[in-house]
Amino acid sequence: MESSFSKHSGPVHENKKTMLPFKHLIPIDRDSDTALYQQIASGMIEAIQNGILETGSSLPGTRVLAKTLKVHRKTIISAYDELCAQSWVDINPRKSVKVADLLPELAPKSWKEEQIKLLPRPDNFTLAAELAEQSGNVHRIVVNDGYPDIRLFPHDLITREYRFSLKQKARQSMEDPLLPWGANSLRNTLVNYLSKTRGISTQLDHIMVTNGAQMGIYLAAMTLLSEGDHVVVGVPGYHLADEVFQHVGANLHQVNVDQDGFDVDALETLCQNYPIRVVYCIPHHHYPTTVTLSPERRNKLLELAKDHCFTIMEDDYDYDFQYDDSAYLPLYSLAKEVDIIYVGSFSKVISPYLRIGFMIANPTLIRKAYRLRRLINIMGDEIMENTLATLINSGDLSRHIKKTTKIYRERRDYLVRQLQLKIGKQVYFNIPDGGMALWVQFEQKFPLQKAIRLARNKGINLSGLPLTYQSSLQGLRIGFASLNMQEIDELVSIIECSLSKDV
Amino acid sequence: MESSFSKHSGPVHENKKTMLPFKHLIPIDRDSDTALYQQIASGMIEAIQNGILETGSSLPGTRVLAKTLKVHRKTIISAYDELCAQSWVDINPRKSVKVADLLPELAPKSWKEEQIKLLPRPDNFTLAAELAEQSGNVHRIVVNDGYPDIRLFPHDLITREYRFSLKQKARQSMEDPLLPWGANSLRNTLVNYLSKTRGISTQLDHIMVTNGAQMGIYLAAMTLLSEGDHVVVGVPGYHLADEVFQHVGANLHQVNVDQDGFDVDALETLCQNYPIRVVYCIPHHHYPTTVTLSPERRNKLLELAKDHCFTIMEDDYDYDFQYDDSAYLPLYSLAKEVDIIYVGSFSKVISPYLRIGFMIANPTLIRKAYRLRRLINIMGDEIMENTLATLINSGDLSRHIKKTTKIYRERRDYLVRQLQLKIGKQVYFNIPDGGMALWVQFEQKFPLQKAIRLARNKGINLSGLPLTYQSSLQGLRIGFASLNMQEIDELVSIIECSLSKDV
Repeated sequence: MESSFSKHSGPVHENKKTMLPFKHLIPIDRDSDTALYQQIASGMIEAIQNGILETGSSLPGTRVLAKTLKVHRKTIISAYDELCAQSWVDINPRKSVKVADLLPELAPKSWKEEQIKLLPRPDNFTLAAELAEQSGNVHRIVVNDGYPDIRLFPHDLITREYRFSLKQKARQSMEDPLLPWGANSLRNTLVNYLSKTRGISTQLDHIMVTNGAQMGIYLAAMTLLSEGDHVVVGVPGYHLADEVFQHVGANLHQVNVDQDGFDVDALETLCQNYPIRVVYCIPHHHYPTTVTLSPERRNKLLELAKDHCFTIMEDDYDYDFQYDDSAYLPLYSLAKEVDIIYVGSFSKVISPYLRIGFMIANPTLIRKAYRLRRLINIMGDEIMENTLATLINSGDLSRHIKKTTKIYRERRDYLVRQLQLKIGKQVYFNIPDGGMALWVQFEQKFPLQKAIRLARNKGINLSGLPLTYQSSLQGLRIGFASLNMQEIDELVSIIECSLSKDV
Repeated sequence: MESSFSKHSGPVHENKKTMLPFKHLIPIDRDSDTALYQQIASGMIEAIQNGILETGSSLPGTRVLAKTLKVHRKTIISAYDELCAQSWVDINPRKSVKVADLLPELAPKSWKEEQIKLLPRPDNFTLAAELAEQSGNVHRIVVNDGYPDIRLFPHDLITREYRFSLKQKARQSMEDPLLPWGANSLRNTLVNYLSKTRGISTQLDHIMVTNGAQMGIYLAAMTLLSEGDHVVVGVPGYHLADEVFQHVGANLHQVNVDQDGFDVDALETLCQNYPIRVVYCIPHHHYPTTVTLSPERRNKLLELAKDHCFTIMEDDYDYDFQYDDSAYLPLYSLAKEVDIIYVGSFSKVISPYLRIGFMIANPTLIRKAYRLRRLINIMGDEIMENTLATLINSGDLSRHIKKTTKIYRERRDYLVRQLQLKIGKQVYFNIPDGGMALWVQFEQKFPLQKAIRLARNKGINLSGLPLTYQSSLQGLRIGFASLNMQEIDELVSIIECSLSKDV
């Protein structure tokens, strides 16, 4: 961005008679690590906060102040730009500089006897600069573990509906109490949506809208479990669920997840030895391996739940994108006489920034979760929840899923083809029938760490991906949905490159 | 809303040869409690889900179907309207009705052997109807305990900036990792904002953006406290903070809050008898009584914190609206060698639906809170956080505060005047110098419950307001900021009315 001063050549307005002694007001330390323009900006801020420079008063022109302080004029330009960016000064169309009118009308008063200076520490600047450097060093491509492509986000649609929901809310005044279990519009919509998309028959008092599926897991665990309770999870599995159970103080038991999903025989053995309270399970596209729990094991899991009276926590974060085959119905939709908590998410359908998910459970648990959720953050963003309800009811969400499903299927196929073509026999994977990620397993000797390092040097960040070691294979979960073909090309090239001895 | 069928007079298209046996398909029970149109809608949904009515197929016209089922044509119109509202059918411009195309392309498959019908339970309809009745019975005015008037919400501005933030994010691809401590843009902005508005000198690693101030209280309590720890709160006080401390299993001690705020002498006595770990305090506009902690007590509170090594949790939910006098600086800004956790909120500045707050604390606590926040909901709405940062930096937020401050001051003065005029000697209050609520105390014999009941009958909901009994006075916290003058008139009239023996 060009400085707003860089083309300044107009008249400089200052009144020498009333000009303040800036030379003394603004101490400059030429040996300091802090840039000169930052020192000048700090000095100005202090003078404004002390009332020496009054709101609305004019500051000297850049040439005059440069001469007074014996610095280059560009340094003053930078200082004024900084002050303007921080809203301490206004720069008017004729490029004269005034102390901003919008400082708080009533400055806060000290309640201590000594005089207090409201000066931001100079290291704020250093920190901001450090951060600016960090974001200068930004990765061109961040590979994630399976999120929708935010570039395909229906911006205009969502913004329009959001605006509409806002205006509607304002018209209605505040007729709704603040609702920890989510907007009624969305809860009502979910009753039909879940029935239509996944055969889940439910009722309003079983539904809670959450900030993403993660909050469902947290609320359920906190509500259901006490310290020392026995919980079973799959391995490899979803680390943030494991951490929630550890946070509650549960005894965590792990069972293996193979090609048919969660090992229910191992679970049976555990049930014979421990009073299992909760089994956390991702039957559809297990995380990170993307396998689907087989029908036989589903039946057995439900039988075990009935016999041993444990609760199944069914995480169905990835239901919506199916490519080759239909999805199985969730456990929740077919279970009888089994206590199931079902959590799902719209963050994985639309955008990771839309933090809306849901939890379906028995009304007793929902009521307890309601009380806890009030303590955590009172409620979600009701306007955004209304917006989502509108998008579901209008069919816009279905259309968006249909459109992106086609794109994601192509991306999955392209990643698979490129990996087969370029890396060939050193990688193994099963092509998932849906979802947004491919679980790629590499030979033990494959230089995967080198590939990650090489990628980082080329501006591609792989460091957030779950990486596991199992039966002498290294597994990496690559989210293909948010990568376009060119990005997939780059990624596969770098993985290929790491095989070369020259790099 | 007028039914989309009510003016239907065009040609009715149906093919008698291929018409399905709707008489048998749609069982009608005239003795059922469920409305006829709902029974018909349910039957249609079942037929669609079973594949008997195919996607895209035409449904009979309303006249024909009414005749077939022997019901009034209006009943069929209502059933089709219901089906349309639930997205099961599309109604085209010529008013013919087709089964919607947007049913999921790949219907989920059962993994149980028996045939499953994907039928929503009929009681969904009953529930939805109940809810519709509830919202038909909506209150015209909901008096809250001190929230901004959402009718003054700068819709267009926020929507425009939100849209811009969204597009910007999409352009950048996903360069940021998911950030449990909030968007960098907003954290950077807060460094300057807090310095400028309330003299808080802080740095990035001390700042966490939360979902409202409530999440700050929750995260701090969960991170800092163990079961049995001693915590001191004020009484009357903020019930959701008390509940958080109880949730953690803390020993809760109460000290009285009088005209000068928190009783620090009582606190001193407690400190001599218990190892106090945390003191939760609202020095500025205590909830619910709106009193401000006096300078003397502030100094003593800090001294006690230093001597007895407890942490002060400073809840500053209500800093931004000042009318008559400057606000005192927060404890945080002037404390030295004292551990303070400072929480604030933008939900109280812009709208209760904007769930953004912040917590300022030592970096060790912030890091622990970061780990817990990932488990709770991973992160907030980063796009909205970027939007807020833009509004702060552009000065739009200051302008909004300035504009609404003027309006809220007028509303406070009007409520005070009306109460004095109409209720006179039976109420007591101190006029708060800022904030959004008036703490009104009534004589013990004042029929306050009757007033609340009367108000409810007139469509004015007061039932969410904190109501306390202290020293033979009944206290009610009335949020004036979201009531316009006409609404204040209505409210005061009803309170006045309850004094009449005739009502």
